[in-house]
Amino acid sequence: MGTRAGIVVTGTEVLTGRVSDRNGPWLAEQLRILGVDVAQIIVVGDRPQDLRASLEFFRGAGVELIITSGGLGPTADDLTAEIVGAFQGRAPQLDPALEARIATIVERLLAGRGLRHDPVATAEATRKQALVPVGARVIEPVGTAPGLVVPPADGSSGAPVVVLPGPPAELQGMWPTVLADPTVLAAIAERSELRQRTLRLWGTPESELAATLRAGADRLDGLEITTCLRSGELEIVTRFAPSAQAAYDDLVALVEANHRDSMFSKSGASIDEIVADALRSRGLTIATAESCTAGLLAARLTELAGSSDYVLGGLVVYSNAAKTELAGVPVELIDRLGAVSAEVADALATGAARRLGADIGVGITGIAGPGGGSADKPVGLVHLCASGLGRSIARRVVLPGGRSDVRARAVVLSMHLVRELLAPGVR
Amino acid sequence: MGTRAGIVVTGTEVLTGRVSDRNGPWLAEQLRILGVDVAQIIVVGDRPQDLRASLEFFRGAGVELIITSGGLGPTADDLTAEIVGAFQGRAPQLDPALEARIATIVERLLAGRGLRHDPVATAEATRKQALVPVGARVIEPVGTAPGLVVPPADGSSGAPVVVLPGPPAELQGMWPTVLADPTVLAAIAERSELRQRTLRLWGTPESELAATLRAGADRLDGLEITTCLRSGELEIVTRFAPSAQAAYDDLVALVEANHRDSMFSKSGASIDEIVADALRSRGLTIATAESCTAGLLAARLTELAGSSDYVLGGLVVYSNAAKTELAGVPVELIDRLGAVSAEVADALATGAARRLGADIGVGITGIAGPGGGSADKPVGLVHLCASGLGRSIARRVVLPGGRSDVRARAVVLSMHLVRELLAPGVR
Repeated sequence: MGTRAGIVVTGTEVLTGRVSDRNGPWLAEQLRILGVDVAQIIVVGDRPQDLRASLEFFRGAGVELIITSGGLGPTADDLTAEIVGAFQGRAPQLDPALEARIATIVERLLAGRGLRHDPVATAEATRKQALVPVGARVIEPVGTAPGLVVPPADGSSGAPVVVLPGPPAELQGMWPTVLADPTVLAAIAERSELRQRTLRLWGTPESELAATLRAGADRLDGLEITTCLRSGELEIVTRFAPSAQAAYDDLVALVEANHRDSMFSKSGASIDEIVADALRSRGLTIATAESCTAGLLAARLTELAGSSDYVLGGLVVYSNAAKTELAGVPVELIDRLGAVSAEVADALATGAARRLGADIGVGITGIAGPGGGSADKPVGLVHLCASGLGRSIARRVVLPGGRSDVRARAVVLSMHLVRELLAPGVR
Repeated sequence: MGTRAGIVVTGTEVLTGRVSDRNGPWLAEQLRILGVDVAQIIVVGDRPQDLRASLEFFRGAGVELIITSGGLGPTADDLTAEIVGAFQGRAPQLDPALEARIATIVERLLAGRGLRHDPVATAEATRKQALVPVGARVIEPVGTAPGLVVPPADGSSGAPVVVLPGPPAELQGMWPTVLADPTVLAAIAERSELRQRTLRLWGTPESELAATLRAGADRLDGLEITTCLRSGELEIVTRFAPSAQAAYDDLVALVEANHRDSMFSKSGASIDEIVADALRSRGLTIATAESCTAGLLAARLTELAGSSDYVLGGLVVYSNAAKTELAGVPVELIDRLGAVSAEVADALATGAARRLGADIGVGITGIAGPGGGSADKPVGLVHLCASGLGRSIARRVVLPGGRSDVRARAVVLSMHLVRELLAPGVR
């Protein structure tokens, strides 16, 4: 089993999907790197008894460490510190020095944003956030809320609970302090390294991979292999103890032998990183002209820091007039073949490159739906083209799913067209 | 307590954050609409014992219904049907008719994508997906995997488990069948309506709202109020039984009286819907010119179906040359004041409107980081401008967080600038 931790993500807004949780998986990955295994993440609303039941679950499972995120704000539904204190048998107590430090932070924050505020309301909110379970260690606020390390009740052998705020930047900012805390370090002292490696395939059906893995099963002892297909990319993530490194090397050889054409990443590098490195290392620039994806590809290409080295810009050509005037697509082409056609995708790609003075242009035109489809050109039909370096690669696909799925898949597909055009080899 | 359900989301890829879960919150919301309360969502990896422990947790909690998502694929790590069967005391049994139906679907799918495939591998994968716990009801596949309704062992009074596939489109496609299933309907027969309403504020600190709620606490009995601040928007979501409608009306009046300037949504309508309706109802068009957000605003404006009625297009002006050549920002302005300046944001907004022939233009220029900051112009500095209808509204902000936070917040802020420009009133 090794050393295990439980994660409790609190907040009705997360439970109901108004905010999508980024903390649970982030914490799970940080713990994995440390050699601490996470079996479950529990997402729980702002009701005291439900949070308490979640903590009890992990106590019952015998985990060595529990981490919570969220519920440290100033409103009445923010109850985590109090519930965790009670769970560990530690009553809340005002920490006046902490109260003063939070007050200073809040003042500065409100002033910086030029917000009017009521001093009495602010003082009450600050006081609530400075209530600390007796015997808990305070982690200094990164935003306004302090974190906590709450040890089990004196004389008890339970797991300590680390209480962290909900905003990801605050939670992540506190992590180094958590890792230096003696109570936390003692709790996870028995951890052992767990490696994680990723292979990525493009265009292989999951059933084919399953057959490959079944055929090689006798050589893969000690590997925990999970596969995941999304937007056409098949991801194989493997976890193993250092003693199983040879089995992992066998797995890589096995997948490579059976899926040489589709394996594009051996190092775990993402399609984004591979495209970025290929562009940067060859000193090439790129530009986009997007209709149905309306800027999503340009946004994706600029997600990585430093992308201004190779992204010059893009055209969002939602209207037909924009296709013509910005990207130079001939009106005649649109009239004759329609805006969603291979020829228009090609004209968008070359038009983007020419207009922005880039080496490579990408054109996307399609029907994201839900309306606008016909028998001839159904919802989900997308024409894509990557053009440059003296050639162009085009694709016509009918993508499944709703409007946002079609847009997201078209972006991934266009990233792979650019990769094909650049042909960087397997990384 | 009312009728309660538990949700178990399976998949190591979700647990570790490689895929962000959309099913748990979606299911929670669908159940809420039905009057079934969800206390927890458990996210669990692909290990049999961890999934089993999660099911046991909900059995122990006495919920009336358990729903799982994921783990129904053809690879060896897809174990949900088997584990749930064992949990309910029902052995797996091959359903040959189902096997034939899945085979037909898989053939068609692979052919449609033009993928080569190995018939033996495909047959094995199909067979695995046609193993059904004895006595379970099959929900026909939307993709390739069937769903299941697995009742408790005969003579036992436990909760039925509904087993659904991981891809959101497949899971959502099966939901109507789930709701028509007699076993499911019997399990949740005692449910009672729970209303949910949302108010949205822009620019009010959470502490101010907390004070408002404390002041009115005696009138708010029977309301479960949760507040959530993100990207500057403060969301107040309230759940209540129909008998507490009067208390909810009091809450709305209370918030309106204290935060009239910042409440922009009374109906729960999102900023996206409000901006879209304001543009459409007045027959106005919009265009964008984005530097640091690089297409994210254009993509956001086109998220809603039918947005081609009012979005003409946009310019992604990542390089300074693109700012000048596409958006017509004078070189002299960039040389003198820098690309990140109020003047350039203004020039981008007017340039976008002119270039695309739109009524309203939005310009965004900033330093998303992590590099590129200076003492004068720190990382997070963003200048925004919305221009049109004879006036323009500009804002200078220094946004907290990492590169993606800065970009995301700038997009939300620009949506609110457009709202201010359109001044649609509270909806």
